[in-house]
Amino acid sequence: MYKIKKANLLNTKAKLILLRHSKVFQIITTLSIIIYSLIIGIETHLKDGIWLYFFNTFDQLINFYFVLEISLKLYTEKNKINFFKDRWNTFDFIVVLLSLIPLSIFETIAVMRILRIFRILRLISVNGEIKKIILALQKSIPSIANIVILMFIVFYIYAILGVQFFSDLKSGLWDNFSIAMLTLFRIFTFEDWTDVMYEAMEIYPLAWIYFVSFIIINAFVIFNLFVAVIIDKISEFKDKNLEFSLKENDNHISMIIKELSQTNKEIKKLQDRIEECLEKKEKK
Amino acid sequence: MYKIKKANLLNTKAKLILLRHSKVFQIITTLSIIIYSLIIGIETHLKDGIWLYFFNTFDQLINFYFVLEISLKLYTEKNKINFFKDRWNTFDFIVVLLSLIPLSIFETIAVMRILRIFRILRLISVNGEIKKIILALQKSIPSIANIVILMFIVFYIYAILGVQFFSDLKSGLWDNFSIAMLTLFRIFTFEDWTDVMYEAMEIYPLAWIYFVSFIIINAFVIFNLFVAVIIDKISEFKDKNLEFSLKENDNHISMIIKELSQTNKEIKKLQDRIEECLEKKEKK
Amino acid sequence: MYKIKKANLLNTKAKLILLRHSKVFQIITTLSIIIYSLIIGIETHLKDGIWLYFFNTFDQLINFYFVLEISLKLYTEKNKINFFKDRWNTFDFIVVLLSLIPLSIFETIAVMRILRIFRILRLISVNGEIKKIILALQKSIPSIANIVILMFIVFYIYAILGVQFFSDLKSGLWDNFSIAMLTLFRIFTFEDWTDVMYEAMEIYPLAWIYFVSFIIINAFVIFNLFVAVIIDKISEFKDKNLEFSLKENDNHISMIIKELSQTNKEIKKLQDRIEECLEKKEKK
Amino acid sequence: MYKIKKANLLNTKAKLILLRHSKVFQIITTLSIIIYSLIIGIETHLKDGIWLYFFNTFDQLINFYFVLEISLKLYTEKNKINFFKDRWNTFDFIVVLLSLIPLSIFETIAVMRILRIFRILRLISVNGEIKKIILALQKSIPSIANIVILMFIVFYIYAILGVQFFSDLKSGLWDNFSIAMLTLFRIFTFEDWTDVMYEAMEIYPLAWIYFVSFIIINAFVIFNLFVAVIIDKISEFKDKNLEFSLKENDNHISMIIKELSQTNKEIKKLQDRIEECLEKKEKK
Repeated sequence: MYKIKKANLLNTKAKLILLRHSKVFQIITTLSIIIYSLIIGIETHLKDGIWLYFFNTFDQLINFYFVLEISLKLYTEKNKINFFKDRWNTFDFIVVLLSLIPLSIFETIAVMRILRIFRILRLISVNGEIKKIILALQKSIPSIANIVILMFIVFYIYAILGVQFFSDLKSGLWDNFSIAMLTLFRIFTFEDWTDVMYEAMEIYPLAWIYFVSFIIINAFVIFNLFVAVIIDKISEFKDKNLEFSLKENDNHISMIIKELSQTNKEIKKLQDRIEECLEKKEKK
Repeated sequence: MYKIKKANLLNTKAKLILLRHSKVFQIITTLSIIIYSLIIGIETHLKDGIWLYFFNTFDQLINFYFVLEISLKLYTEKNKINFFKDRWNTFDFIVVLLSLIPLSIFETIAVMRILRIFRILRLISVNGEIKKIILALQKSIPSIANIVILMFIVFYIYAILGVQFFSDLKSGLWDNFSIAMLTLFRIFTFEDWTDVMYEAMEIYPLAWIYFVSFIIINAFVIFNLFVAVIIDKISEFKDKNLEFSLKENDNHISMIIKELSQTNKEIKKLQDRIEECLEKKEKK
Repeated sequence: MYKIKKANLLNTKAKLILLRHSKVFQIITTLSIIIYSLIIGIETHLKDGIWLYFFNTFDQLINFYFVLEISLKLYTEKNKINFFKDRWNTFDFIVVLLSLIPLSIFETIAVMRILRIFRILRLISVNGEIKKIILALQKSIPSIANIVILMFIVFYIYAILGVQFFSDLKSGLWDNFSIAMLTLFRIFTFEDWTDVMYEAMEIYPLAWIYFVSFIIINAFVIFNLFVAVIIDKISEFKDKNLEFSLKENDNHISMIIKELSQTNKEIKKLQDRIEECLEKKEKK
Repeated sequence: MYKIKKANLLNTKAKLILLRHSKVFQIITTLSIIIYSLIIGIETHLKDGIWLYFFNTFDQLINFYFVLEISLKLYTEKNKINFFKDRWNTFDFIVVLLSLIPLSIFETIAVMRILRIFRILRLISVNGEIKKIILALQKSIPSIANIVILMFIVFYIYAILGVQFFSDLKSGLWDNFSIAMLTLFRIFTFEDWTDVMYEAMEIYPLAWIYFVSFIIINAFVIFNLFVAVIIDKISEFKDKNLEFSLKENDNHISMIIKELSQTNKEIKKLQDRIEECLEKKEKK
């Protein structure tokens, strides 16, 4: 009896594995996340009691489906460690795990809200193409990291200078280092930066040097960053292509050279042979 | 008598086909659309009764010409289905058809106005160069589609977060999901985004994290989108070029190798021949 | 005595030609334009009577120098028509000519002011490097002309739609076609575009479609224009380079093939020769 | 005894050289600058008496460390001139030297503040990667210098025109040349440029030509600058790559040609040899 049970179990597992890798399963998961995202969007429009009850029920249903889905994925995976080696699986697992915690234990409602949002992020983990884009973004980080550091140093120095000179301004935009950094970020986006400048120029008429230089330095850095990154990526790509092309070419050419030297050797042999037999003749 | 009539008809059709493909016909059509566009522009300046009467008459004249033009095109086309296979022809046909509907049947005047505008869009359908640009734009859609989806997910999540946290703000910029999406689009264009932020920071002092992170994420995505698309297009183009160049080179090199192996064979033959006759000699 | 005079004259002309092509002459001309530009800048700070007198005198001096300079250039040029074939010379000539017209004949002072500014533009005509940039800009016009036309059509249609729907708004930003075009240009630069939108949304709650679609269409067109132009220019450049590289390679390879076929012929000859003499032997 | 001393000294110097090139030394220096930067940032938040005392002490400590560090670097350098040939060393030296000047001799506190900021700039001089970026930025200056000059000429002309036409406006944004330049820079960043335009249009209804043309000219110049610089850099890079690839290829091909001509010579020799012995035979 135990054997039959086990066979049944194996049979069930095989079916589940088929289900887990079926397209239908993937589509249902994607759809359920999309519907869930839509519901969260609609929720912000309708805040009545009846709808709230419906939304809560739907929330629990989705939660239940997500638990089922991740259990299925985990169960059908042969090597449990491989499952967690994929960062996106780990991400899904943590999101589902967090949603199982009873929400009442959080003091503020804000944490609960953010947790719900994280489930929408699963839209990224179920879409292969977007996963690739995220990967491409990650790869581009090192090539711009140093430029971001340089920009940060410029921001840092200007923030300290800003606090030292403009901290007495009424607008309070330069009260301390953190606020000054925010004000500089605002100037960086060209957002009403002249309002900030004109206020400062009332006390220090030369304050425009501070603002104009900040904008020019950052624009210059960004412009060059742009050109540098593009050139760098193109050259990287081209190097590979050229290397391959050169290698191919080299292979062919070395083949030709080999063949030619072979030809020369054969001719040499021929020559020697003729010479040899001619010598014999003469001796005769 | 019937035959003569038919011959006349055929003759007329031949003339019409000539007319339809003549440059004069195309120029007249283009000019009539341009003049029509200008009149619609001038109309917004002059709103007196007399002018209105003139504009109405002109409108009917242009309508009449457009009907004639599309009829001519349709009549001179051998295969009627081919005519509608060209999307631009279908577009022209629908625009002209819609303009024949008596305007009084529309409840609001807005629909009529929009219909009239569509005729200006025919400027695109008569200009070959701009048609090409539209085609190029269409082709570029797939390469940026996924990045647009990713940006939409980011917008979606931030919109819901925005409603959940800032819906009580007086400005009403976060009242519901749709309005929050519009507010985020505004922030995306850097349009007075600090006004929105400063209002939110009065209640949540850490609200700047929300706004600054949104701007940085989108700027980062857009920057990388830009670089990726450029690199992608260049590599696409280069691959074709390199492939062609490599193929050409390969052809030449394989020709050399062939010739060389031929050389070697000939030398071998020569060698064998000499060897053979030398052996004969020795035997003698 | 007439001969000596003519010789003197010739001698003077030779000296003038030397002067005209000397570096000193070019530097003096450049410096005089720079100083002139500086004076015009300083003039806006100092508006007292004494300074005005000085500036007027200086103006006449510069005028006098410019007349001398252009006369020298024209006099030393062998073929007077060649002088005017160079657009920059024509430009200089017209600027100097216009400055000789007594200013009192202009009714408004505005024309006079603009004429004076044109002399600063001569800074471009004396700088070879900047001339090259202007030439490069001119060359880039055809590659973006059609895209500008497409953008203009989009602006045109949106302007008419704007007037038809929003002409009753209090701000008067949609009063007629010209003002609507200016308002759209403003929206195009993201300049306080939400102020315009929020006003329109009070009457038409769906007005955001108009504004957001306008921004997205134009941003999309510009983005693709950018990528297209860059790719186009790179491909143009690369084609030339590749063509050259392929041609070089082809020349070398055809040389090898030629040499090889020569080798094969020689071997053939050798073979034939041996065959021939072997036959002779056998006959013997 | 003198010898032992000298040996000790040499021993000490060797140890110091080791220390100076050790990774620990570099990390300590980097950390001390980072901590110093953080302290200066925190200082803007805490302005109490106790903290001020702590900050002053820390300032002197850092000063002391920087003097020690630069002395060590200078002492361990064999050739003192080489030390100053490295611009970054000179920069560090001047920064440290300036910080030794007693601050009380400066009339205003502003100079002192700026001097302290300069020490943060040493973060650049201790980071190899950022040094490279700065170098890359320096290299890109010549390729955009002329375009900046052209833009400056455009700014200059528009500034003078602006003062001549709009100097009477109440906002005072066109009072004199310098203020007009600042106003134009503001318009260049699209910052509330319509406010400036609408004010001017109240007096000159055609003033929009001035503003719109300024924006279009600068946008056009910048756009083309962008494309030109990118194309220029790519072509520069590609030329090198192609040159190298062509050279490699040429080397291989000339090797083949050499080998082939060698083959042909050998065959010739063979032919001659055969011919020669055949002649001998016939003579016999």
